[in-house]
Amino acid sequence: MSKKLILVTNDDGITAPGIRALVHEMQLLGEVIVVAPDSPQSGQGHAITLTEPIRLKKVKVFKGVEAYECTGTPVDCVKLAKHVILKGRKIDLCVSGINHGSNASINIIYSGTMSAAMEASIDGIDSIGFSLLDFSFKADFNAAAHYARRISQEVLKNGLKECKLLNVNIPAVSLKKIKGIKVCKQADGNWIENFQEGEDPRGQKYYWLAGEFLDKEYAEETDLHALQNNYISVVPSDHDLTRHEAISHLNHFENL
Amino acid sequence: MSKKLILVTNDDGITAPGIRALVHEMQLLGEVIVVAPDSPQSGQGHAITLTEPIRLKKVKVFKGVEAYECTGTPVDCVKLAKHVILKGRKIDLCVSGINHGSNASINIIYSGTMSAAMEASIDGIDSIGFSLLDFSFKADFNAAAHYARRISQEVLKNGLKECKLLNVNIPAVSLKKIKGIKVCKQADGNWIENFQEGEDPRGQKYYWLAGEFLDKEYAEETDLHALQNNYISVVPSDHDLTRHEAISHLNHFENL
Repeated sequence: MSKKLILVTNDDGITAPGIRALVHEMQLLGEVIVVAPDSPQSGQGHAITLTEPIRLKKVKVFKGVEAYECTGTPVDCVKLAKHVILKGRKIDLCVSGINHGSNASINIIYSGTMSAAMEASIDGIDSIGFSLLDFSFKADFNAAAHYARRISQEVLKNGLKECKLLNVNIPAVSLKKIKGIKVCKQADGNWIENFQEGEDPRGQKYYWLAGEFLDKEYAEETDLHALQNNYISVVPSDHDLTRHEAISHLNHFENL
Repeated sequence: MSKKLILVTNDDGITAPGIRALVHEMQLLGEVIVVAPDSPQSGQGHAITLTEPIRLKKVKVFKGVEAYECTGTPVDCVKLAKHVILKGRKIDLCVSGINHGSNASINIIYSGTMSAAMEASIDGIDSIGFSLLDFSFKADFNAAAHYARRISQEVLKNGLKECKLLNVNIPAVSLKKIKGIKVCKQADGNWIENFQEGEDPRGQKYYWLAGEFLDKEYAEETDLHALQNNYISVVPSDHDLTRHEAISHLNHFENL
């Protein structure tokens, strides 16, 4: 049997410790190709590069692994991997991360990590985004890496059927303290935002986004509740943004 | 009774004809504030600017309307409007567009227009993205503007209850040829993509995203079917990306 083909990407850039940990685990499961941004791309959401060209460069970053850095967004990386680098070769799994910081709750919509995984899933590729709840570059990726491998192994073995995209978040605790995995829904969490205002060296005013996540008690079936209780959260997701149950309540619009 | 407060934004930039048409209609419905990008931001999805400061400049672009151009993304514009310009004033409606080009089907996930509207809806603001199926800057916005006003008027009057976000697309035909409005779901449409490869003036290779939307027959309840038949499509949406019906099928992950 031929080896499974695993595409690895992220949004923190190809030199981030999180992707290094993920590549290491994926090498145990199949043939690994890495296409990742050449610089940090956090908060890029599902952005694609339309108005300018993208550069792609083969790099030696991971021992024994074919790897490319790309000047584009995380979603650009996946598109280039599919159309230019792998040119129609079947990708068995796309994994993105391990992200430095949470992509649970509302964070999924801003996340380059999750958008890259979603981009692969649009073509029917089983795709998983992994995120560790620790922004530090010195974060301990042991537990996250361990579960990234187990979850990826299960997906490679049995496939994803009902949806092609999983959002996996891992609490920032040691492997021993993790209580297990919960399959759950996205919590309706909030950021309390503000803008830092300042003046640049030329006397021009600027604004810089700041803020913190509102930490409250979350309902039991949500990702934030699982994470608060030291469980890994697994949320099934995809690219259909229709609020299906609202359709029948909006029929009066058809009379406008 | 005080006038309703309407926030207008877009992703084609503050000088695009589409936003001009939308501002004109919204002035008939309430007090209008415009915060829009200073340059085209198509394909920016839900990107936010984290690694650099954003500039904001009050501009006279629309007669009698307070307007600001912003160096950030469409989502940045909405955040700045909420936190810096309107500082907690209640926004009754956020409209985004009128976009030059379709945001039906899969296009919603790449769309700065829809992401800006979604960003407002997260805070419970009734929000609508409007898009005309014509990329041209010379497009005829008459029909789109007419229906943007009618739909906005309905939302200002009765509010959105089951969801706070509508994705409205308008076929590129004259007002007379539009058959009406259909409330529908997002079609599972496809782009057939490729990358144009080239060499820049310094001999360096580049890639530039190209492609075309696959036009096929779409199921009756979808936005693409409505648009193909000269109906305006209205798709209810929001920021919950959970595939709820898949949760119970993934329980075996809890045993890993």
